[in-house]
Amino acid sequence: MIRISLDMMGGDFGPEVVIPGAAKALERHPDVTFLLFGQAAKCESILNAYPKLKEKSVFFDCEVAVAMDEKPSQALRRGRYVSSMWRSIEAVKNGQADVIVSAGNTGALMAMAKFCLRTMATIERPAIAAIWPTLSGESIVLDVGATIGADAQQLLDFALMGGAMARALFEVERPLVGLLNVGVEEIKGQEEVKEAGRLLREAGLDTFDYYGFVEGDDLGKGTVDVVVTEGFTGNIALKTAEGTARQIAEYLRAAMSRTLLARIGYLLAKGAFDRLREKMDPRKVNGGVFLGLNGIVIKSHGGTDAEGFAAAIDVGYDMARNGLTQKIENDLKKYHARHPTTAGPEAA
Amino acid sequence: MIRISLDMMGGDFGPEVVIPGAAKALERHPDVTFLLFGQAAKCESILNAYPKLKEKSVFFDCEVAVAMDEKPSQALRRGRYVSSMWRSIEAVKNGQADVIVSAGNTGALMAMAKFCLRTMATIERPAIAAIWPTLSGESIVLDVGATIGADAQQLLDFALMGGAMARALFEVERPLVGLLNVGVEEIKGQEEVKEAGRLLREAGLDTFDYYGFVEGDDLGKGTVDVVVTEGFTGNIALKTAEGTARQIAEYLRAAMSRTLLARIGYLLAKGAFDRLREKMDPRKVNGGVFLGLNGIVIKSHGGTDAEGFAAAIDVGYDMARNGLTQKIENDLKKYHARHPTTAGPEAA
Repeated sequence: MIRISLDMMGGDFGPEVVIPGAAKALERHPDVTFLLFGQAAKCESILNAYPKLKEKSVFFDCEVAVAMDEKPSQALRRGRYVSSMWRSIEAVKNGQADVIVSAGNTGALMAMAKFCLRTMATIERPAIAAIWPTLSGESIVLDVGATIGADAQQLLDFALMGGAMARALFEVERPLVGLLNVGVEEIKGQEEVKEAGRLLREAGLDTFDYYGFVEGDDLGKGTVDVVVTEGFTGNIALKTAEGTARQIAEYLRAAMSRTLLARIGYLLAKGAFDRLREKMDPRKVNGGVFLGLNGIVIKSHGGTDAEGFAAAIDVGYDMARNGLTQKIENDLKKYHARHPTTAGPEAA
Repeated sequence: MIRISLDMMGGDFGPEVVIPGAAKALERHPDVTFLLFGQAAKCESILNAYPKLKEKSVFFDCEVAVAMDEKPSQALRRGRYVSSMWRSIEAVKNGQADVIVSAGNTGALMAMAKFCLRTMATIERPAIAAIWPTLSGESIVLDVGATIGADAQQLLDFALMGGAMARALFEVERPLVGLLNVGVEEIKGQEEVKEAGRLLREAGLDTFDYYGFVEGDDLGKGTVDVVVTEGFTGNIALKTAEGTARQIAEYLRAAMSRTLLARIGYLLAKGAFDRLREKMDPRKVNGGVFLGLNGIVIKSHGGTDAEGFAAAIDVGYDMARNGLTQKIENDLKKYHARHPTTAGPEAA
């Protein structure tokens, strides 16, 4: 049994998306039970429409809902202990849930998760990992926006955590890890990236293989299982890819509706276009994973629909079932046992 | 008359692509004359096949060809004064040519261009500007890889130079300039980016309008005419977009060839697909512009074909005809006249 805690008030549509999303996920994973945190007045009538979900859930009435545009500091002040966001995270801390999923505001969610769950012993900074669709399947890209900038040791931590997540998500034994860099010849890459490359070559772990540097166009190719970068670049790469996909979809739409022949061709090839649309569907890879905390937190896109929210729950389910937190802890321990001089619990 | 200097030995195919590319460009711009720099043994027989081009060109035999994988320092040592790359740049310095176009190795080209042409008086670092196709037309994105990292003053310089290039390329009077940043709420963006935003708000120039921050997905939308960022992030954004476009093209190809109906639909809609392919054709926007040097240098993709090289010549032609270098110099002077305390020729 996997116990999933949900922040029902998060996202642009709150319980109207979270509840049907949870119902969809429950169909796929009958071994799930839910802890639902929300404002009773806004949730109860919707929940009543999903009797199967209701039967597998425990509902907790919460006073406060964190707004999507609230600053993290304000959200913490107003929502600590009493908001659906805080209490759904706290359920993981208290061992009542295995994972928490929220479509709420990223900044507030990260601030509350750090405050409530704390970062793992040797981790200075958590990261947000995105699941990236590629020509060969899926990759993990981190950090896509938890923090700006990262030194070599932090990039190494991201690599260790991303590798553990790849083992949990893709069920490969030794995922291939690459560092995002620029290949233009005259510039040798950021100092931190070069130094992280050295640390990764010398890591000597059996939990992943270090590939070397990758470039922006390797993301879509799926050259490696895990792409490591700091949060500023990672966030811009992620949004650039999303924007490019939308741009091309728009070109395609315009081209296929322009002439009668094109419209007929479109109708005949509709099955193929549907498959293409499914491939490019951002809802399918909805679910950023917060790594480096003492507990699993999944961030769903705020604007997603029930299908997308269900996909985020799927990610949380996989991460919990495959013991993501334990995998990360073990990998970090292994690394610090081999490299006792680097910053670890002993050195800290 | 526009005089264009060409490095015939640059790119993966050298004169086999440069010469037919120049012939194509000449058809579009009959007022062009070329200065051709290359190794006679490798160029002459090809050039003889293009009599119209030959008639409008002067050929200069050069001893050395810079290799695509040569390190900038090595290229400078081996190729200074004697390579086709150096001599084609030198033609701009000597006033014999208005612009130089090369498909040669980026690092070597930038190193030689800096050494030969020198940076403009108040510019610490040159930038490479890319022309980015968007839903509303085209934007300029810089820096896409000349240097890693940039402080606020350098980002401001990029904005001034990008604004001047937009006026030369798009013929708008006051291009809209944005700073690339991350929108995730908990992180407020790099300090340098914030500080550059302040400088831009206070610039008080009539040569561009400052929009504010933009995110990765604004690139494809065409939210602004000029997107400013430092070279590491810019290079990764550019390659991520290129990779995503290739990835989707591959999905589309696979989807449209999978079933008989899809193949028939494809044939009927072929006109629409051709238009789409043209929209996504990377050759159409081939041509990175080096900004901040005392002369115009255009970098073509090394792997491009004749059509792509001709597009790079088109960019060079437009930049020369619209007086890019003078526009940048004027804008920099205007800025430093209004802001005499910032680093300028007086302060340097």
